[in-house]
Amino acid sequence: MVPRYARPQMTAIWEPEARYRIWFEIEAHATDKLADLGVVPESAAKALWDWWATNPAIDVAAIDAIEQVTKHDVIAFLDWVAQQVGPEARFMHQGMTSSDVLDTTLAVQLARASDILIADIDALLAAIKRRAMEHKYTPTIGRSHGIHAEPTTFGKKLAEAFAEFTRCRTRLVAARAEIATCAISGAVGTFANIDPAVEEHVADKLGLAVEPVSTQVIPRDRHAMFFATLGVIASSIERLAIEVRHLQRTEVLEAEEYFSPGQKGSSAMPHKRNPVLTENLTGLARVVRSAVTPALENVALWHERDISHSSVERFIGPDATITLDFALARLTSVVDKLVVYPERMQKNLDRMGGLVHSQRVLLALTQAGLTRDESYRLVQRNAMKVWESDGQLSLLDLLLADPEVMAALGETNIREKFNLDYHFKAVDTTFARVFGDDA
Amino acid sequence: MVPRYARPQMTAIWEPEARYRIWFEIEAHATDKLADLGVVPESAAKALWDWWATNPAIDVAAIDAIEQVTKHDVIAFLDWVAQQVGPEARFMHQGMTSSDVLDTTLAVQLARASDILIADIDALLAAIKRRAMEHKYTPTIGRSHGIHAEPTTFGKKLAEAFAEFTRCRTRLVAARAEIATCAISGAVGTFANIDPAVEEHVADKLGLAVEPVSTQVIPRDRHAMFFATLGVIASSIERLAIEVRHLQRTEVLEAEEYFSPGQKGSSAMPHKRNPVLTENLTGLARVVRSAVTPALENVALWHERDISHSSVERFIGPDATITLDFALARLTSVVDKLVVYPERMQKNLDRMGGLVHSQRVLLALTQAGLTRDESYRLVQRNAMKVWESDGQLSLLDLLLADPEVMAALGETNIREKFNLDYHFKAVDTTFARVFGDDA
Amino acid sequence: MVPRYARPQMTAIWEPEARYRIWFEIEAHATDKLADLGVVPESAAKALWDWWATNPAIDVAAIDAIEQVTKHDVIAFLDWVAQQVGPEARFMHQGMTSSDVLDTTLAVQLARASDILIADIDALLAAIKRRAMEHKYTPTIGRSHGIHAEPTTFGKKLAEAFAEFTRCRTRLVAARAEIATCAISGAVGTFANIDPAVEEHVADKLGLAVEPVSTQVIPRDRHAMFFATLGVIASSIERLAIEVRHLQRTEVLEAEEYFSPGQKGSSAMPHKRNPVLTENLTGLARVVRSAVTPALENVALWHERDISHSSVERFIGPDATITLDFALARLTSVVDKLVVYPERMQKNLDRMGGLVHSQRVLLALTQAGLTRDESYRLVQRNAMKVWESDGQLSLLDLLLADPEVMAALGETNIREKFNLDYHFKAVDTTFARVFGDDA
Amino acid sequence: MVPRYARPQMTAIWEPEARYRIWFEIEAHATDKLADLGVVPESAAKALWDWWATNPAIDVAAIDAIEQVTKHDVIAFLDWVAQQVGPEARFMHQGMTSSDVLDTTLAVQLARASDILIADIDALLAAIKRRAMEHKYTPTIGRSHGIHAEPTTFGKKLAEAFAEFTRCRTRLVAARAEIATCAISGAVGTFANIDPAVEEHVADKLGLAVEPVSTQVIPRDRHAMFFATLGVIASSIERLAIEVRHLQRTEVLEAEEYFSPGQKGSSAMPHKRNPVLTENLTGLARVVRSAVTPALENVALWHERDISHSSVERFIGPDATITLDFALARLTSVVDKLVVYPERMQKNLDRMGGLVHSQRVLLALTQAGLTRDESYRLVQRNAMKVWESDGQLSLLDLLLADPEVMAALGETNIREKFNLDYHFKAVDTTFARVFGDDA
Repeated sequence: MVPRYARPQMTAIWEPEARYRIWFEIEAHATDKLADLGVVPESAAKALWDWWATNPAIDVAAIDAIEQVTKHDVIAFLDWVAQQVGPEARFMHQGMTSSDVLDTTLAVQLARASDILIADIDALLAAIKRRAMEHKYTPTIGRSHGIHAEPTTFGKKLAEAFAEFTRCRTRLVAARAEIATCAISGAVGTFANIDPAVEEHVADKLGLAVEPVSTQVIPRDRHAMFFATLGVIASSIERLAIEVRHLQRTEVLEAEEYFSPGQKGSSAMPHKRNPVLTENLTGLARVVRSAVTPALENVALWHERDISHSSVERFIGPDATITLDFALARLTSVVDKLVVYPERMQKNLDRMGGLVHSQRVLLALTQAGLTRDESYRLVQRNAMKVWESDGQLSLLDLLLADPEVMAALGETNIREKFNLDYHFKAVDTTFARVFGDDA
Repeated sequence: MVPRYARPQMTAIWEPEARYRIWFEIEAHATDKLADLGVVPESAAKALWDWWATNPAIDVAAIDAIEQVTKHDVIAFLDWVAQQVGPEARFMHQGMTSSDVLDTTLAVQLARASDILIADIDALLAAIKRRAMEHKYTPTIGRSHGIHAEPTTFGKKLAEAFAEFTRCRTRLVAARAEIATCAISGAVGTFANIDPAVEEHVADKLGLAVEPVSTQVIPRDRHAMFFATLGVIASSIERLAIEVRHLQRTEVLEAEEYFSPGQKGSSAMPHKRNPVLTENLTGLARVVRSAVTPALENVALWHERDISHSSVERFIGPDATITLDFALARLTSVVDKLVVYPERMQKNLDRMGGLVHSQRVLLALTQAGLTRDESYRLVQRNAMKVWESDGQLSLLDLLLADPEVMAALGETNIREKFNLDYHFKAVDTTFARVFGDDA
Repeated sequence: MVPRYARPQMTAIWEPEARYRIWFEIEAHATDKLADLGVVPESAAKALWDWWATNPAIDVAAIDAIEQVTKHDVIAFLDWVAQQVGPEARFMHQGMTSSDVLDTTLAVQLARASDILIADIDALLAAIKRRAMEHKYTPTIGRSHGIHAEPTTFGKKLAEAFAEFTRCRTRLVAARAEIATCAISGAVGTFANIDPAVEEHVADKLGLAVEPVSTQVIPRDRHAMFFATLGVIASSIERLAIEVRHLQRTEVLEAEEYFSPGQKGSSAMPHKRNPVLTENLTGLARVVRSAVTPALENVALWHERDISHSSVERFIGPDATITLDFALARLTSVVDKLVVYPERMQKNLDRMGGLVHSQRVLLALTQAGLTRDESYRLVQRNAMKVWESDGQLSLLDLLLADPEVMAALGETNIREKFNLDYHFKAVDTTFARVFGDDA
Repeated sequence: MVPRYARPQMTAIWEPEARYRIWFEIEAHATDKLADLGVVPESAAKALWDWWATNPAIDVAAIDAIEQVTKHDVIAFLDWVAQQVGPEARFMHQGMTSSDVLDTTLAVQLARASDILIADIDALLAAIKRRAMEHKYTPTIGRSHGIHAEPTTFGKKLAEAFAEFTRCRTRLVAARAEIATCAISGAVGTFANIDPAVEEHVADKLGLAVEPVSTQVIPRDRHAMFFATLGVIASSIERLAIEVRHLQRTEVLEAEEYFSPGQKGSSAMPHKRNPVLTENLTGLARVVRSAVTPALENVALWHERDISHSSVERFIGPDATITLDFALARLTSVVDKLVVYPERMQKNLDRMGGLVHSQRVLLALTQAGLTRDESYRLVQRNAMKVWESDGQLSLLDLLLADPEVMAALGETNIREKFNLDYHFKAVDTTFARVFGDDA
């Protein structure tokens, strides 16, 4: 975790205190059920919850100190709780194994992290939608291969991003379901010393699904799928970030990351406003993606478990979720405040002197009865002049002055081929598909 | 694609002829709709389908030869079709862009590949289930960290695999839905020269969903999610493969890949039966996973598209699907024919002289009222003797001969602690969870 | 291997015939040494070489047919050779294990592949150098964050690429040394049935180093390092490819991939020349890099070997080397034929109306005794006018018309600050560092 | 960075104070040279060094506070230094750009990290060597595919690890050279406002090479190669870790991670000693490797730089080096204290009843004049009995009792075939190759 790329709400999930609180809840709920089953006295569960009702502070340092002696984190925690609660606490953890607590805790943490990430995506979607509506009909050049192709609208570009992050949201909801399971099944997952009813009870209380079959641990294909999904989302962030970076290039400058008037005034180089936020997002996407391969390598644990996954998850659990949370929020802010220059979009659209319309003219000539070769010849001789003038000449003007073209199409028809609205007639359809009734 | 790791049904999807057949269908269905819309004559569509009804061979070499001249694969194909169909074919492809054909074709190919992979998983699940039922109560030692932990059953281990591949199946169905979309939206996805109804029609005919908004291409976050999912499935294959490799180790030998009597007879070293199939699967898992990162890197295409994804997909499209198909089939065969040695499982279970039951004895002593320390002392002094004898002594015998232990627990109680069935009492519950009514 | 991204010389290395030829050479050289040592008769070695001297064709199909029966590739080959050579061939392979042949063969193949790749880089370096010299003093704008920063020269940009690929060459030479080792050490690398002198002899004859200690196989950390190096080289290819893609963007257009006059003439859209070669290289870089992770995962083979690496190498061995060879050759061609537009570079340099020089003016004002704040104010008031004019006004003109600036600096001094040569004074130093005496 | 996997010496390199100290040294050395060149007064450099000579504490909080205002880390630092040093400090940083400081600092940090890692490997090599010498002739079974193959010695296995980490050391030295370069070349690497002599001076003082040509930044192919090398080393760690994990399996138990007598005494389950250190190392290897792909993706920065690499390096710079340092030290400790059980190795060697020698007997029969088929038949009929007895029968005994085998070979010859020393005759050669004169 790198503090400058972290936000407190997500970071809090991964702090020791949060972890210990989940441990307690798992143990206390399990004790409830064990009491129901007659395995431990009712008083044991009551003692735990009575103490908890006092909203006690978790003394992380004290627990750490015990761990220095016991060399076992869960036992250290249980000892500390026992010190607080008294002798009734000795019934905690009956028939359970440490992994029951640790893996179910990770499930709670990842589920909570997912909830934040889902909310992040919702905020991002809202920002994208607002800007898409704002620029639904703002003309801009569509580019394939970085080269001008045909006109589109800036709103449609944002609709693409909206659709993409809507997919990301769906994937994230599925990924959350993957990892939100509870396992309390004992040393090798056989429930040898604990009733499966305990697992069901704790799962229910924590809002988790029951893990149908576990070994000592929850199977890691779940986590692999979770982190792979984060990697896909990171790649979608990268895509939108790179779009902004391209639009902010000096020669393009159709949009810019927000800069405060103060920022602007402080420099003698007013052109030097760098898309540092989206460049940063490009890098953070690489960071989030870097969790995917180790998560995949974590799947093939030996037999009923080895502990190789644990160290990996100590890194990627916090790093991937904290970084993705930060990145989504940063991207939301970038989209929200993006400074868009419609006049510059129009200027760029026009900079090829209308060459982007040449294909429509070509098609019109063919439809007017000329052969394909002849049509080409007519368009090309004008198009080349425009091209060689570096956009100083206008294709429309030249075509209107070309007797053969005029003879074939007539002025109205020719002018119609340069009508931008032609390209925007399906924007409504697309918006309806993407935004539904809100479009 | 490496032929030795390929099966014909999957390979066929990626051959040129299959691709051209899909191209034709896209073009012909599109022409149908264009005729409906009055853009092209009804006769154009009829001519295409009439020719198709003759079940014509696709002359890949002839198309290639045209491509040598046109330097454009889609145009070469259209020219060749036109040669076969005649002048009516000139109405094909009206208002479409090459990517409309290429990307929708990839969707069909990946959807078909998914169907095979889903069937592969179904076959694998059936094999696992059969063996799980067969060994539902076959005792075997559960191992954590490669070290004997507590007893479990071999059927329960297979139930874990069943649950894991059931999840893989669900993921694959979702991944199929990700990539099974149709885009026919023109040069930058604006439907400038083609009605969205064409896209809807072709999608319907090909069994694809409509891509809500495309650029020139279908967005690559879909494909990233698809290949990431294959990577997760590959990792689950690796996990089961490694389990078999462990079980076949000389010192463990609880199960073996099938070897024909002929194979057995041919060697002077009867012990040298190597788990080469599962080792191979371990390698193939790495191969399938290697598609994940480039697929993630493909997402951030520039603006309305660049073509960097194309070369990547020429590799990973066939390689990942063909290899995964082969691997699933090989794993199915391994599971189906796995030679299981229950007697050896029992022997291994017993090799620690009953030490795997020491914890139950410890617990019983505590419950009988001894302090934790006292209980430990009693168990430990016997356990250490067993341990030092390398399994020659039996913990049960020693405990029965230990007056203090006998005094605390009595023979019946002590013997009960060595009862394997204690560990299997939840097998039914687990099987019901995993296999449902079939369990 | 995807044929369209393959060149024959590299592909040939990976074809069965080439592999069998290396097998033969290893076996024949080994037999030579075994004869020297008196283990086999001299006539055995002589018979092998006599046959080889007839330059026999390798009948791959016949060998495959034998393998169908023997289920073992090396034995099938030995049988086929024996059929050709006669009874003396039975002394081949004495005391050797299949891996001795297979791993040493892979070493020869990768070494040969490395030789081609080194030659590829040399050709690339030659092309880059030629263009760097050509454009040593061609002014162009340097960009940080995609935003105009300060002037540089196009030759200096190419010098950067030259230095980078020079490093790649050094790395590749080191990577070649990593994998160019010979192991003929028997079933677990103990030389139980073969004298180490055989290994030394074969290594010497094949131009390989002796593997100091092997298991059954050559250790795979060597191959991991090899493929990791290819991944780094691929990333350098990507970097230069992306530079070209940026330069060819419609709004920038400072350079273009070569297009033949025919290509140019054939289109009605003269602006639509797409950087498809460099986009393709971007994708191929991802493909080559995808070999890195599986190669790293191949390192941890179990004990004296498992065979999981083998399937991985059947993919990445050919794929990574063939693709990288193709990519290097394609990049060389792109650089060699790159159409450079110095006038457009100058135009872009000037498009900010001289704002790129504002920092030098600022510094000059400070040095002339003004406070930093005052200097800023003077520069900024002029710079903002230029910025707001979108490059229509010239900073130089405005400064010359600003009495305060004139008073502080004077015309000569102001003009000097707009002198491009100021930025090029270290080009000679840089070229001397990069190109040495040739600069 | 996860504190439990970090050691203070390496962590210190990445702490803010260490970074600021390097910044100061770069600035002060640069000022020295600028004074030499007459660009700044001699007094400026003197003032800086005079202050430094007082060994001042770096007030990180104060610098952070300034950064809150300036929004620029390097400027904040310079301001703070100026507060300490006084007006002479204003001459610092003349003509330099922030990246000159930042990139050169990263070079120093990575070089220092490399020095620690090289020392780590040296310590590991020493531990491996000591244990290899100790067990040079300790017989153990060699395993291919996890199956018993032929005898080897435990020392030879360790010699393999020694050779592998010797290669890792060489690679690390090369990787250090890759990143240990100094760039002080200005905004786009043209030395526009600074003399290249400053770069040369600072490089010399810091023990770095001069970067021959930089943009605004040091090219990132260097860092990619660095992190790729760490990934290879991590994989070698994984290999040795997995070997230990295999050896510690309950059924194998030829070696164990060290356990203190106290640890032993504290458990009632003396068999449950888990190889948690080497499992942890397996996971940490995945963590270190996860830096490779983002480092490769960092290479293709746009034009003269974008800042996407920066966030990536804030993670992988500390994480990869700190984790690898920890892992190397942990592995060294594991090797150093590894509890080796030669008697168990012998027992395992013998558990197949001598079947591992069957191939030598087969060869002897062939050499004695029997046909291959006949030889096979004789060996096999005895081998199968041994195999079916699960190691209770001895192949040697059966062969000695087989009249046909006795007739062909005689007792002495048969017994000789079961001589372990036969397999160890090349151990000296191998040790001489690996350890040189020390062997």
